[in-house]
Amino acid sequence: MDSSPLLTLTTDFGLKDGTAGILKGVIWSICPQARIADISHLIRPQDILEVAFVLARAVPYFPAGTIHLVVVDPGVGTARRPMAARLGQWYYVGPDNGALTLLLERAEDEGWPLDFVHLNRPAYWLAEVSHVFHGRDIFAPCAAHLARGVPLHELGEPFGEAVRLPLPRLERTARGWQGQVIYTDHFGNLVVNMPARELTLGRPEDWRVLVKGRLIRGLARTFGEHPPGELIALPGSSGYLILAQVNGSAAELLGATTGETVEVWLEA
Amino acid sequence: MDSSPLLTLTTDFGLKDGTAGILKGVIWSICPQARIADISHLIRPQDILEVAFVLARAVPYFPAGTIHLVVVDPGVGTARRPMAARLGQWYYVGPDNGALTLLLERAEDEGWPLDFVHLNRPAYWLAEVSHVFHGRDIFAPCAAHLARGVPLHELGEPFGEAVRLPLPRLERTARGWQGQVIYTDHFGNLVVNMPARELTLGRPEDWRVLVKGRLIRGLARTFGEHPPGELIALPGSSGYLILAQVNGSAAELLGATTGETVEVWLEA
Amino acid sequence: MDSSPLLTLTTDFGLKDGTAGILKGVIWSICPQARIADISHLIRPQDILEVAFVLARAVPYFPAGTIHLVVVDPGVGTARRPMAARLGQWYYVGPDNGALTLLLERAEDEGWPLDFVHLNRPAYWLAEVSHVFHGRDIFAPCAAHLARGVPLHELGEPFGEAVRLPLPRLERTARGWQGQVIYTDHFGNLVVNMPARELTLGRPEDWRVLVKGRLIRGLARTFGEHPPGELIALPGSSGYLILAQVNGSAAELLGATTGETVEVWLEA
Repeated sequence: MDSSPLLTLTTDFGLKDGTAGILKGVIWSICPQARIADISHLIRPQDILEVAFVLARAVPYFPAGTIHLVVVDPGVGTARRPMAARLGQWYYVGPDNGALTLLLERAEDEGWPLDFVHLNRPAYWLAEVSHVFHGRDIFAPCAAHLARGVPLHELGEPFGEAVRLPLPRLERTARGWQGQVIYTDHFGNLVVNMPARELTLGRPEDWRVLVKGRLIRGLARTFGEHPPGELIALPGSSGYLILAQVNGSAAELLGATTGETVEVWLEA
Repeated sequence: MDSSPLLTLTTDFGLKDGTAGILKGVIWSICPQARIADISHLIRPQDILEVAFVLARAVPYFPAGTIHLVVVDPGVGTARRPMAARLGQWYYVGPDNGALTLLLERAEDEGWPLDFVHLNRPAYWLAEVSHVFHGRDIFAPCAAHLARGVPLHELGEPFGEAVRLPLPRLERTARGWQGQVIYTDHFGNLVVNMPARELTLGRPEDWRVLVKGRLIRGLARTFGEHPPGELIALPGSSGYLILAQVNGSAAELLGATTGETVEVWLEA
Repeated sequence: MDSSPLLTLTTDFGLKDGTAGILKGVIWSICPQARIADISHLIRPQDILEVAFVLARAVPYFPAGTIHLVVVDPGVGTARRPMAARLGQWYYVGPDNGALTLLLERAEDEGWPLDFVHLNRPAYWLAEVSHVFHGRDIFAPCAAHLARGVPLHELGEPFGEAVRLPLPRLERTARGWQGQVIYTDHFGNLVVNMPARELTLGRPEDWRVLVKGRLIRGLARTFGEHPPGELIALPGSSGYLILAQVNGSAAELLGATTGETVEVWLEA
């Protein structure tokens, strides 16, 4: 068994400029044995809710001890706090700007231990720190020091509560729920903030979903059991209701994207 | 010499959602010493012929023993069979839906040993299996168990023949061949289903290619020996005839893409 | 401490075709213990100045000994020389076509040792060499042999001077400098060929930047201290002046891209 530390990268850097590559160079300069996986570099620039969703879906599938380095950082160089955190079995290194919002909700539900430190010890940063690229100069070095065994509490002062963003809330209506699309994925599937576990009530064929004037009758189990082109609703792999077009894009079909209102109810 | 197992990933997941990252987390949770390379996550959604071409071009360049995890899976959760296979020196894990079609042709030509198993042993899956994401819940875990040394035949029941897709066929005509574009690459080069080995007959300057009413006279040897902007035909690096525009995109120049008809002959 | 060799890949191959994956397969076939990071595969096809900029920004952040494999190669198969080089603490393997231009300038400024060899020993190539894919058949194998310990001078004949491209020059004007945009990044930030160190003269509020008829008064320190939407100028993380729109794209706002003229001066 190999014990080389694992890190992941999640950023809004895009894939052209080599910026994520620079993070890897910095990490390997400090912790040569690290193994590094990309989660995403195509988070919409400065979109903290998007990164919160992507992290909440991916982090729980990584081994205990994995360090998740996250740089979606519109406030770089301002008063927002550079942070490292323990969330249950995993670590986060990045700005304290709400990127953990969904994982913190889950941590509360499941009683994960939490621990936050303010990255304020320049001994663990690069020698020169730019005002515009803390990913390279502060976060990657701190993540790498953590990976090579520096204890979390060595990296900075502990603090009590990380920033959380207000999340779109699911609301009860007379006949069911009103929610909204919280993420639009690569396939054009629309993720609705209706937990899939609620959908196990009643019979699948009795559920109704109304979006942009279109009524979907019944929940599907998977994509391929309906004909290509059909708009379906089904429990998705991330624990939420999703709207999908079989072999197509629900986002395109409906002209809908993140933020769209969706009504859901169980027909009597 | 390092003996840590190698895996590759080929999917239509795109690069934004973190979905390929999840596969890596699952693999490392089971086989921490695995090294993982991405082949492509930009296969056109549900396009099995495209993944068949990309795999046929890449797989032979990987070391013996490499495990190729492939998730282009429009039939997820339906009756299509989850499969692991040995193809010559390499392994495939993914749906039995035709993604191996071109590699199986080559296996026959070259006498590679073949071995297929139906992934029907839940002991090697994640504890919870969603109907919509077998990549995460079945294929990645099975690939990781294979990587850590579980024998292929432990993962499921052997079976005899994997699914193959009908491929566009090259047809003989009175003066030569009629083929079609089977792949359009990042540069806009058009790959034609005419094997490059046929093009060694006769003299390069005597070959003719007709596409969208444009006649190309003679075969080029490489791009840079013709002026920028010129449309050329030449033997490509994947063993097929390609049509290219020097420093440009033949696909754009011709308004052509995968499926376009191409006529090829040797002038008397 | 792990001593497995590090390689990076920088190409214009795109991310769909699996071409960069093939390079990894070739490298691992020769040097199984190599660890490989992608820098970029989205260099604009055949754009050597772009790759020169991306490399100059990334290479110095990698550990000593890292081998940078670079394949932006419009002259593949023609007389351009296949090369391996030592630049200070790092190695380059790729065509001798100017991709090192900016790093060579820095090497001169900082007195890095330089060493160039012509890759002319087929013993270190793949057995079959295509005319159109030296990345796979020559460069990746040579980089892998270097990674497993073959000395640079074993790979080919030494030579004296690598190709350099003419770079856009910063010009003195009556009141300051006239420069141009040399790179446009993923966020739409415009990188100007005005070294950030020049901008430490005078007071930040006295600098003026004129681009496409718009005057920017004063230099910002970072993005988040100005309101969203504002056009700002500031020293960027790669050592040059950058023009940015806070939470937006300066490139889109200005309708400007690489090549645009920019005037810069210090107000008396």
